[in-house]
Amino acid sequence: MSKLLNVLLVGGTHGNELTGIHLVKRWQSLPDEIARQGLKTELLLSNEAASKLNRRYIDADLNRQFSLSELKDSELSSCEALRAKEINELLGFKQTPSQDFIIDMHTTTANMGVTLVVNGDSELALKVAAYVQSKDPGVTIMHQQVNRDDDNFLISLGKFGGIVVEVGPVAQGLLNAEIFEKTRLTVQAILDFLSLQQLTEVVLPKKISAYQFIEKIKLPENENGDLVGMIHPKLQNRDFQPLKQGDAIFLLQTGETQYYEGLPNCVAAFINEAAYYDQHHGFSLLKPVQLQLTN
Amino acid sequence: MSKLLNVLLVGGTHGNELTGIHLVKRWQSLPDEIARQGLKTELLLSNEAASKLNRRYIDADLNRQFSLSELKDSELSSCEALRAKEINELLGFKQTPSQDFIIDMHTTTANMGVTLVVNGDSELALKVAAYVQSKDPGVTIMHQQVNRDDDNFLISLGKFGGIVVEVGPVAQGLLNAEIFEKTRLTVQAILDFLSLQQLTEVVLPKKISAYQFIEKIKLPENENGDLVGMIHPKLQNRDFQPLKQGDAIFLLQTGETQYYEGLPNCVAAFINEAAYYDQHHGFSLLKPVQLQLTN
Repeated sequence: MSKLLNVLLVGGTHGNELTGIHLVKRWQSLPDEIARQGLKTELLLSNEAASKLNRRYIDADLNRQFSLSELKDSELSSCEALRAKEINELLGFKQTPSQDFIIDMHTTTANMGVTLVVNGDSELALKVAAYVQSKDPGVTIMHQQVNRDDDNFLISLGKFGGIVVEVGPVAQGLLNAEIFEKTRLTVQAILDFLSLQQLTEVVLPKKISAYQFIEKIKLPENENGDLVGMIHPKLQNRDFQPLKQGDAIFLLQTGETQYYEGLPNCVAAFINEAAYYDQHHGFSLLKPVQLQLTN
Repeated sequence: MSKLLNVLLVGGTHGNELTGIHLVKRWQSLPDEIARQGLKTELLLSNEAASKLNRRYIDADLNRQFSLSELKDSELSSCEALRAKEINELLGFKQTPSQDFIIDMHTTTANMGVTLVVNGDSELALKVAAYVQSKDPGVTIMHQQVNRDDDNFLISLGKFGGIVVEVGPVAQGLLNAEIFEKTRLTVQAILDFLSLQQLTEVVLPKKISAYQFIEKIKLPENENGDLVGMIHPKLQNRDFQPLKQGDAIFLLQTGETQYYEGLPNCVAAFINEAAYYDQHHGFSLLKPVQLQLTN
């Protein structure tokens, strides 16, 4: 048997997403649930300062602080930039990481069910996603093209990458038992696979269906930059459904509807994500892609 | 015709409840929608400091600052205590108010639909509630027994009282078009009635069904006071449904279920309200009551 795979389970990277925080606490008291042959599993609450205040972050989004250049930049001094450097040091530095694979648990206010976010070309992360999707076809995979050094997500600290488990819809600042259970079972399935592939050859599909991020779409603003509309009720909850030109996307304060006129063959996700409101973003636009597995 | 009734519409008393804030902004640009014969209607954003930061409050809940003794207490200096005094002055002081009736728009993360909160013995507020419920039997009325001087809600500044319009479920920090529309139509119906009763005798039911607050019920905690459970999936979304002894109410981290063993003939409301988490409250317990109208 090969040496143990070091797996890190992270909660609270966004301090008001309680599900991951309470799963970490659960597993601190029930370690057997995350114990697997071939794995050494550790737990981390990544932004306790923010979670104590029930805020997404104190100064800046922690999950945008982990590019190599940011980690090396001694000028950066926001609460989260400092915390990112602390975590980087704790995990043996991005270039010589002690953790092989990182699972970062998030929630969204959007109706995205269980979504797995894979960054860059991490073969292990793609395999994890393929395995979980093969067990539950309702799971969606999002893929972001980025190289490991530039990747500013916490999961980029993993030697073989990592995966974001993003589950919704659930409001910030509370626990929903159904979302909690979906997240718990998804992480369990990931650990099952990581253990299994340590012990044996796992047969996986050669291709997986995923979505690639194109851009965030702004909510309607007036000339002063004030928000003057909201997600149209016909778009609400339709994450990962086909978005066609002419579909209603925004409802203005005046009662008028705005229609989608962008690229064809796309879908929307993070529809009405509360964390998008600070920048007045309404949703993300994504395109379907097929990803190749090389195993 | 009697003199004009001064009606104040308030949004953003809790700074992360966006619906009321955006309804105030809507009506600032579409004043005809809230214009009614016999009424002089004004608009107020009550806690802009908190809403700019997308927080419920800066230092303390603004909607607990309006008792006469707190308004007179020069020692109180939290951001919200000062804002309450400012609003009190703006509205001509609690004992000599310039506003006859106040409508304060709130949202909840609980599945409470449209709930109208009436405090004390305001006859006009009870009539408003009776009228709105007669137009839409799905509307729930909550009644809190408190005298006007002790009442710490913003609506207690109204000469003839006021009403809280509480609509959910919607997450904090975002707009949901359906919740927005329900709130808009409820406020319109309230204004319709206030106008109508200025002009003519309105026939209303002599009795209305409502719920009276008993107590808040704590979420499960361990000996250190840490949260170790959540709302049971069988209780989630069952606001204002009968709560029977032996019904599942909490799911512990360990997987165990806790059951209701309290008073009979009660209902739960504010089930899984995000704003309750700071005090580890799971829901409010209420009892059904019949309220008499004296008209």
